[in-house]
Amino acid sequence: MAIMVLQSFRPVLDTIAEEIANLDGRGRPADYIPALAAGDPRHFGMAVADLDGTVYGVGEWQRPFSTQSVTKVYTLALALAHEGEILWEHVGREPSGNPFNSLVQLEYENGIPRNPFINAGALVVTDRLHRLTGDASGALRDFLRAESGNDGLDFDRDVAASETAHGDRNAALAHFMASYDNITTPVPTLLREYFRQCSIEASCADLAVATGFLARHGIRADGTRLLTRSQAKQVNAVMLTCGTYDAAGDFAYRVGLPGKSGVGGAIIAVVPGRCTLCVWSPGLDARGNSVAGVAALDRFTTITGLSVF
Amino acid sequence: MAIMVLQSFRPVLDTIAEEIANLDGRGRPADYIPALAAGDPRHFGMAVADLDGTVYGVGEWQRPFSTQSVTKVYTLALALAHEGEILWEHVGREPSGNPFNSLVQLEYENGIPRNPFINAGALVVTDRLHRLTGDASGALRDFLRAESGNDGLDFDRDVAASETAHGDRNAALAHFMASYDNITTPVPTLLREYFRQCSIEASCADLAVATGFLARHGIRADGTRLLTRSQAKQVNAVMLTCGTYDAAGDFAYRVGLPGKSGVGGAIIAVVPGRCTLCVWSPGLDARGNSVAGVAALDRFTTITGLSVF
Amino acid sequence: MAIMVLQSFRPVLDTIAEEIANLDGRGRPADYIPALAAGDPRHFGMAVADLDGTVYGVGEWQRPFSTQSVTKVYTLALALAHEGEILWEHVGREPSGNPFNSLVQLEYENGIPRNPFINAGALVVTDRLHRLTGDASGALRDFLRAESGNDGLDFDRDVAASETAHGDRNAALAHFMASYDNITTPVPTLLREYFRQCSIEASCADLAVATGFLARHGIRADGTRLLTRSQAKQVNAVMLTCGTYDAAGDFAYRVGLPGKSGVGGAIIAVVPGRCTLCVWSPGLDARGNSVAGVAALDRFTTITGLSVF
Amino acid sequence: MAIMVLQSFRPVLDTIAEEIANLDGRGRPADYIPALAAGDPRHFGMAVADLDGTVYGVGEWQRPFSTQSVTKVYTLALALAHEGEILWEHVGREPSGNPFNSLVQLEYENGIPRNPFINAGALVVTDRLHRLTGDASGALRDFLRAESGNDGLDFDRDVAASETAHGDRNAALAHFMASYDNITTPVPTLLREYFRQCSIEASCADLAVATGFLARHGIRADGTRLLTRSQAKQVNAVMLTCGTYDAAGDFAYRVGLPGKSGVGGAIIAVVPGRCTLCVWSPGLDARGNSVAGVAALDRFTTITGLSVF
Repeated sequence: MAIMVLQSFRPVLDTIAEEIANLDGRGRPADYIPALAAGDPRHFGMAVADLDGTVYGVGEWQRPFSTQSVTKVYTLALALAHEGEILWEHVGREPSGNPFNSLVQLEYENGIPRNPFINAGALVVTDRLHRLTGDASGALRDFLRAESGNDGLDFDRDVAASETAHGDRNAALAHFMASYDNITTPVPTLLREYFRQCSIEASCADLAVATGFLARHGIRADGTRLLTRSQAKQVNAVMLTCGTYDAAGDFAYRVGLPGKSGVGGAIIAVVPGRCTLCVWSPGLDARGNSVAGVAALDRFTTITGLSVF
Repeated sequence: MAIMVLQSFRPVLDTIAEEIANLDGRGRPADYIPALAAGDPRHFGMAVADLDGTVYGVGEWQRPFSTQSVTKVYTLALALAHEGEILWEHVGREPSGNPFNSLVQLEYENGIPRNPFINAGALVVTDRLHRLTGDASGALRDFLRAESGNDGLDFDRDVAASETAHGDRNAALAHFMASYDNITTPVPTLLREYFRQCSIEASCADLAVATGFLARHGIRADGTRLLTRSQAKQVNAVMLTCGTYDAAGDFAYRVGLPGKSGVGGAIIAVVPGRCTLCVWSPGLDARGNSVAGVAALDRFTTITGLSVF
Repeated sequence: MAIMVLQSFRPVLDTIAEEIANLDGRGRPADYIPALAAGDPRHFGMAVADLDGTVYGVGEWQRPFSTQSVTKVYTLALALAHEGEILWEHVGREPSGNPFNSLVQLEYENGIPRNPFINAGALVVTDRLHRLTGDASGALRDFLRAESGNDGLDFDRDVAASETAHGDRNAALAHFMASYDNITTPVPTLLREYFRQCSIEASCADLAVATGFLARHGIRADGTRLLTRSQAKQVNAVMLTCGTYDAAGDFAYRVGLPGKSGVGGAIIAVVPGRCTLCVWSPGLDARGNSVAGVAALDRFTTITGLSVF
Repeated sequence: MAIMVLQSFRPVLDTIAEEIANLDGRGRPADYIPALAAGDPRHFGMAVADLDGTVYGVGEWQRPFSTQSVTKVYTLALALAHEGEILWEHVGREPSGNPFNSLVQLEYENGIPRNPFINAGALVVTDRLHRLTGDASGALRDFLRAESGNDGLDFDRDVAASETAHGDRNAALAHFMASYDNITTPVPTLLREYFRQCSIEASCADLAVATGFLARHGIRADGTRLLTRSQAKQVNAVMLTCGTYDAAGDFAYRVGLPGKSGVGGAIIAVVPGRCTLCVWSPGLDARGNSVAGVAALDRFTTITGLSVF
């Protein structure tokens, strides 16, 4: 049971970067919008942030990318902070067992999405946050700026416009849930807010640092509390069971950390009480997770022994 | 982030037992076989075992009960120890997103069950272990005797007979997977082995101690290694994402520990590197998990802060 | 094998009307929009039209009602007349085996609806007709006016507006199919056209006469040909297998005629080569078909022996 | 609307045989048991029987083949004759909308199969008939001998044995329905009876003549009544909506007759009040229906105008 006592994450990151450089088969970038299709699977960056915000990085760890579904974690945390348990009357917290856009379970379960990390669930969480704040995407951006310390962090308007132009499936999900009265924001407004969130540009450094509140059991960068200890545990639990589309079981098995991936190629992960990570590489596997990203996190927990299991 | 430093688990267990005594609504016992239907939801026992096998208990912690699906964890560990990665060609490790007996996903996924803890998956794991050992149920019993130190631990032949008499649904699953060549043991033999495993009688003390190898990262009670550190992590991960039927997300959210429940009312849970637990109370919720058992584990992780998140 | 040789349908209609007057349990009107919820299950009308357009009626056979899904038959016939076999690349002709709004099969079958009579299929047929004519709802209205000889036949703008206000589920279906490129008309335009069609007001007399082309193997009221003999057979076949939501098997079993129902309480039916029928009563059964309407058609085929079987 | 007045079916059959001889792409024989896999798609036979039992044939119309699922029609008729409406409490009469072996709908619908012609439904009908007669397969054989006038008609024991050896999926279906108490015969007995029925060998001539009672509205070859007029209509209706697996809509659309196919390559069809047909050719399409068989029936109804629509 020898676990490395780390003075610094730098040597581990260097080792991982070397191994990833030799990784064959890096998957393919998402192709449903041009901005993502242009992604190059050879890109790779990784950052680890200590509880105090000290950040270590390797590769392109300071290069901004499209965060996409990774932001669903922060939107969930904000909505939970605003309305607490009521949120769970509108969205479940069970793994979906189906591909991430599936309408099937939504129909069987009367418009209540299985969890906040499938698209349908994230639309519901955005709807809740927008009701509570009047500006869901603005609230998210402001939060990420504050937590990352990067005041320049912002939406990519071209990406948001491109998502909107290819947004029929999310429009279908939103209208479908509206037919069950589980969406109250007008659908076009909701989609605008949702796609703006997905379009946020940030780097591995930004996200590793901004995720710190989940390793600190709910405490924000400025020392104030966003979530109760129990709520922080809950967000981590939902990430572990639902954070990587229909590969959550495999991710838990290989990596063993709460994590959330996005089709831009980023994955964030949390070692509760210890540190937070963000890795990025645009090549995805068949289930929508970054190939090099999962491999890097797998190596990280294997080398350091820092899995939750 | 104050986490209790515990000299002993006794005070915590006493507190929990008091709270559980006042718990309203304890669910209903499983009713598909007479032996289980006779269970009384007022029963309650709980045990915690330290890494060295020291065991603390409260309530009816030494009273034997029908272990049922809890044994699926040990069968999985034994099969994994015997054949390693090959096992995963025959069974997946993703949450099912459906009730535990579902044939639906099995059909969509060509006879490969989603994970080892739904009935279909446990039948496959039993098939593998029986091929490898020629005596799956015997191998399981011997393992549990050795790990628990209880040489009297055994099958309950009446329960096994009763399960067989009500075994049409498991027979359907086995024949269905055989039609995909994912079961090779003759179906009647396989069902006999499977139901014998389910029928094992053990106490909270027995199971808390016997589960220790998962907290010790793969090391058995006698100091030998059953699983690699990586395999032990994998079993814990599968427990967390798939161990409590279609309530795995909720269990992770509330309890935050790898756990496995059975319709006899038992739940085992693991705090990796720290301790193992077993709680028992026969009243089940709508998803098949012990009501008092989940509540007790929820209290345990809340009081001690010993969640993996 | 004595089949009645009928000089006139009047005695049969009188007998049926008497029996229906004594029918207990007439179902409940559709309640998803106020205009339909106000329907009174005690209303009943029935009309039979000979091949030459002679029409016999009983009860409120000249009272206009909301035609709703009954119009899907005429829209299909018009689209088929315009583009022939190409239509079937965009919509199937198999029974759905699921409730009429189901998204499930649509997802499994990549955006191609099972048949033209489920909502998804009717949206596709409307999309095709709108592409071909630039005015799908106008083409339908003009056709029904010409075939029924009733120049006053028109949309009910209040009903159309009410459908639009409750149109989230159809919007979901349309966006979903648009995501598979199986809808090309902008969704708001398509929904306007679709709901206008549903809103058409007509009487049993109007519809019995207007359906004559299907009994005349494709020949319109003015003697010109709308459909080939083969196409007319095809429309009748699709009505028989798919015309009464997920009760098509039961309708074929009880009535044994090609038929199409609507949630306004109307059902049209065809005796190929012999006559056409329309019956109306607003009380629906659990599957969306008029209770008195099905009973009346059941009696008609039993008394006259005029089933296709 | 010129419909041929036929003195004899011989010229039509000759025309069809010529066209079929030139048919490219005849599909592939069923391959799940060796006896069927040996079938040669170049075989072709067709027979038409008048109401009085006069039979016309072409090609290999007197050559025996494995009847397979075609016999489900006769078993249904016998069970319906024995117990009437009660039968429909155990099996539905709606199209399945899914492949013919599907367990999915069976699970959603609590062990009640959708219709008597999917395997699950035929197992239920066999169970009913066996309860009522004590010898389901014997009753079927005797009935077919009497109706066809062929006393040598019998089971093929090799085929029955081969079906049994590959019977895991049907065993799964039977056990699954038994778990819902919708099967009461012991599963091994039921499967024996079921597979014996499937194994019956008969020719196009035998089956065309034996099906006559469905064209005669329930009257057997000896002039006695098997089914009421209403029941005969019902069997024809179920054939039309459910008789050709998940291609029932397409079969109705192309052929427009009640029909039932089997994986041995046979299809029977009924022109109520006029004649019955049997066609055979072992090459199947992707949905399990004889390619040349469907083509021949399509031509028959097109040439003669004898569709029910």
